[in-house]
Amino acid sequence: MSIYKPNLSMLTDLYQLSMAQGYWKTGTLNEEAVFHLFFRRSPFQGGYTVACGLAQVIDYLSDFSFKSDDIAYLRGIEGNDGNALFDADFLTYLEGARFSCDIDAVPEGTVVFPHEPLVRVRGPLYQCQLIETALLTLINFQTLIATKAARVCSAAAGEPVLEFGLRRAQGIDGGLSASRAAYIGGCAATSNVLAGKLYGIPVKGTHAHSWVMSFDSEIESFEAYAEAMPNNCVFLVDTYDTLEGVRQAVKVGEKLKAKGHKMVGIRLDSGDLAYLSIEARKILDAAGFQDATIVASNDLDEHLIESLKIQDAKISVWGVGTKLATAYDQPALGGVYKLSALRKKTGEWDYKLKLSEQAIKISNPGVQQVRRFYTEEECIADMIYDEDMPPVGKDFIIIDPMDMTRRKRIASDIQYRELLQPIFRKGECVYQSPTIQESRAHVQNELKSLHRSIKRFKNPHVYPVGLEKQLHQLKTDLILKLRGF
Amino acid sequence: MSIYKPNLSMLTDLYQLSMAQGYWKTGTLNEEAVFHLFFRRSPFQGGYTVACGLAQVIDYLSDFSFKSDDIAYLRGIEGNDGNALFDADFLTYLEGARFSCDIDAVPEGTVVFPHEPLVRVRGPLYQCQLIETALLTLINFQTLIATKAARVCSAAAGEPVLEFGLRRAQGIDGGLSASRAAYIGGCAATSNVLAGKLYGIPVKGTHAHSWVMSFDSEIESFEAYAEAMPNNCVFLVDTYDTLEGVRQAVKVGEKLKAKGHKMVGIRLDSGDLAYLSIEARKILDAAGFQDATIVASNDLDEHLIESLKIQDAKISVWGVGTKLATAYDQPALGGVYKLSALRKKTGEWDYKLKLSEQAIKISNPGVQQVRRFYTEEECIADMIYDEDMPPVGKDFIIIDPMDMTRRKRIASDIQYRELLQPIFRKGECVYQSPTIQESRAHVQNELKSLHRSIKRFKNPHVYPVGLEKQLHQLKTDLILKLRGF
Repeated sequence: MSIYKPNLSMLTDLYQLSMAQGYWKTGTLNEEAVFHLFFRRSPFQGGYTVACGLAQVIDYLSDFSFKSDDIAYLRGIEGNDGNALFDADFLTYLEGARFSCDIDAVPEGTVVFPHEPLVRVRGPLYQCQLIETALLTLINFQTLIATKAARVCSAAAGEPVLEFGLRRAQGIDGGLSASRAAYIGGCAATSNVLAGKLYGIPVKGTHAHSWVMSFDSEIESFEAYAEAMPNNCVFLVDTYDTLEGVRQAVKVGEKLKAKGHKMVGIRLDSGDLAYLSIEARKILDAAGFQDATIVASNDLDEHLIESLKIQDAKISVWGVGTKLATAYDQPALGGVYKLSALRKKTGEWDYKLKLSEQAIKISNPGVQQVRRFYTEEECIADMIYDEDMPPVGKDFIIIDPMDMTRRKRIASDIQYRELLQPIFRKGECVYQSPTIQESRAHVQNELKSLHRSIKRFKNPHVYPVGLEKQLHQLKTDLILKLRGF
Repeated sequence: MSIYKPNLSMLTDLYQLSMAQGYWKTGTLNEEAVFHLFFRRSPFQGGYTVACGLAQVIDYLSDFSFKSDDIAYLRGIEGNDGNALFDADFLTYLEGARFSCDIDAVPEGTVVFPHEPLVRVRGPLYQCQLIETALLTLINFQTLIATKAARVCSAAAGEPVLEFGLRRAQGIDGGLSASRAAYIGGCAATSNVLAGKLYGIPVKGTHAHSWVMSFDSEIESFEAYAEAMPNNCVFLVDTYDTLEGVRQAVKVGEKLKAKGHKMVGIRLDSGDLAYLSIEARKILDAAGFQDATIVASNDLDEHLIESLKIQDAKISVWGVGTKLATAYDQPALGGVYKLSALRKKTGEWDYKLKLSEQAIKISNPGVQQVRRFYTEEECIADMIYDEDMPPVGKDFIIIDPMDMTRRKRIASDIQYRELLQPIFRKGECVYQSPTIQESRAHVQNELKSLHRSIKRFKNPHVYPVGLEKQLHQLKTDLILKLRGF
């Protein structure tokens, strides 16, 4: 269910189309290729990442084809000599092309770690290439925001977090998909009405300063609001003087009570939230409003929430906007998409990797799957292995991709699950997508299975992820060969 | 020409609808209100800001209405007691409502400064409120990116900057509108094919590492690329060993030359760009490829480009991705939208402002316009004034909104222009939008009219913006009244 009028097949970098034409000319267009989408570092210097965005990938791929107006546009693109960049016959081929790849991916809400594939694409080389950019855009951003939301919610320690980021989001869809990913990551609701409608997310809100300013006095504005919305009375108290505003809210709260309604609470949107929430709580409690909630907003993130809790701030609902919806302290996840195998004419795989002088930037070859091992309490390690070389024996050995001397032995008979699930087979979707509520619940289960030291904000414990030893050997051999040894 | 299937009237915060219902119940729904959209600090600690996003605001407002499925959704939203949040009669009213505001705005590409309205909205109170969120989303983000692009292009000092940010952009539209704003801000082209098609932006691209990796050797990959795309030959040389890659590119460049084609250049995407570009230049020049360009990419921004130029790096085309498309070092512009006047029953304006303990957060009242004054060479000051109290006399006095003792006298007979232009009148668009190329050219003219000290990255000179003295007096009187003096 895409919200866009055109399908998004043209949402790609020009060089993907140039390379597709190249493969077409060299006759390698339909060679079977394998690519993996992964990242190299968890965002926010954190210890884990929450995968998100697969539902939009499915929407995108389910409607993948180039229309005649797309082809007409491509025909007009010029190369550096002023002649057409694209060959007319190639464009005709492209217009008739239908998506036919196999896609495997981790379900939305799955906790993932550096080097693990979030998406594996297998199929005709040119198709793998054409969909790279959109896959990265969709997965990179929602994964970033779901992870940020999980962190913010973890700081709020079970108290509701409301996502208020739309007005500062990076564009319309930046706002919509941030609301979606934030909800999956653990937020209780969004202020974004269209996201609520499109994705079935609960919507929440109070009122703005402009409401108060439109009346001659603050108390008149609260009275009018209580009259107009008796079942949604959270008063914004900081338009003029915050604690005076709390006292006005109490007066109106008493009138509401007399009429059989309830003042739900107050909202603080500026000033020293620790001081003001403590003082506001005293005023509310003294007036018999012990169950009125104090909602706070104003550039909050996980670190500020943690600090406010340490200061014993009396806040019970957290409105988080800009810092969440834009992932302010790290606004991009560096997800990449790398070729890892190409089928030779002989029928065997030709394994591929991208070299780099930095070990962290060398990609892994093969047709990868990730196996996660569990004790009764928690997950203990992930093994990246090649599906064509499944691990055998009584014990499995996994090897740190950054340091081949760091290894871990895992008894092969302990509990595990495979992270990548079949999503498309030969271009057809074979996956029954969970509801957004199910994906949100999945995140909570995933986080429960992580040792708390991994969830720490500062210097988190590094969860063990390793290459299964045959895959490690394949990779080592390939690197040495490429380096001429 | 919106690219979305639904219109975007529901792209709003829930509290806007709650307040609209409040205004409906208090009978103030259609009171004439004035709001201004402005920001308080230029982004990136810079000295200027480039306004952008108006075209999308026009798209949004041209199709503003609530459809029956929107109303059905709103009907289902519950308040805190489980009853419907919205009154059925209010929703019926909303379904019949048509946009009828006056909008004035600065044309896209106009240079603007803190406290100046980018958009002024005047019309029925509830409508002004309902459109707040989308206006902020659209203007905040594109203005941020156009400003970033202007800075990056200024560092590149006339050399082309290509925007490559789609894969790390914040969502689909984060990518599309970033490409648009980056082009208006001064970029030469984008890699984003859909943005090229939708907005008429030139598209550019080379090839990826995966192209090279799909062949048995780098030279085979270059030869195949030269065969497939003889008129777009920029070779990516850093897949295995960068300078060795340059030598391979030279060999293929010679074959291209022999066939009457041309090697356009090479691209560097990793490593030390200063060192590698200087060494690559030597290799290219020695082989007779003096006019082959060196394109560089890899987490570039204005500061890195400036540093590479100081180091005399031999780069002539700059590919800029993540840092531009997400405005990485400041991913949100803090644009706000404040009520400044409300028509009293007597017909007079009731002027409004938002108080704050911080002077920078106190908003300005009135029905504002901005007048920019020019000498022959450059603009020298901006005056924010109230249209109903136009300045008179031989000299105008403008007063710094942050410090009332800082004032500037401007001869009233010097050249000026008014920044806000009529965009909508009574809900109808009266504005002939410029083409994207015209908006891009406008940015260049605007930047030329700024003294270079204002364009400096570090500690830029502060351009003088002041309140005209009658407006200043109105504001001062209001603040003192609200503070009880």
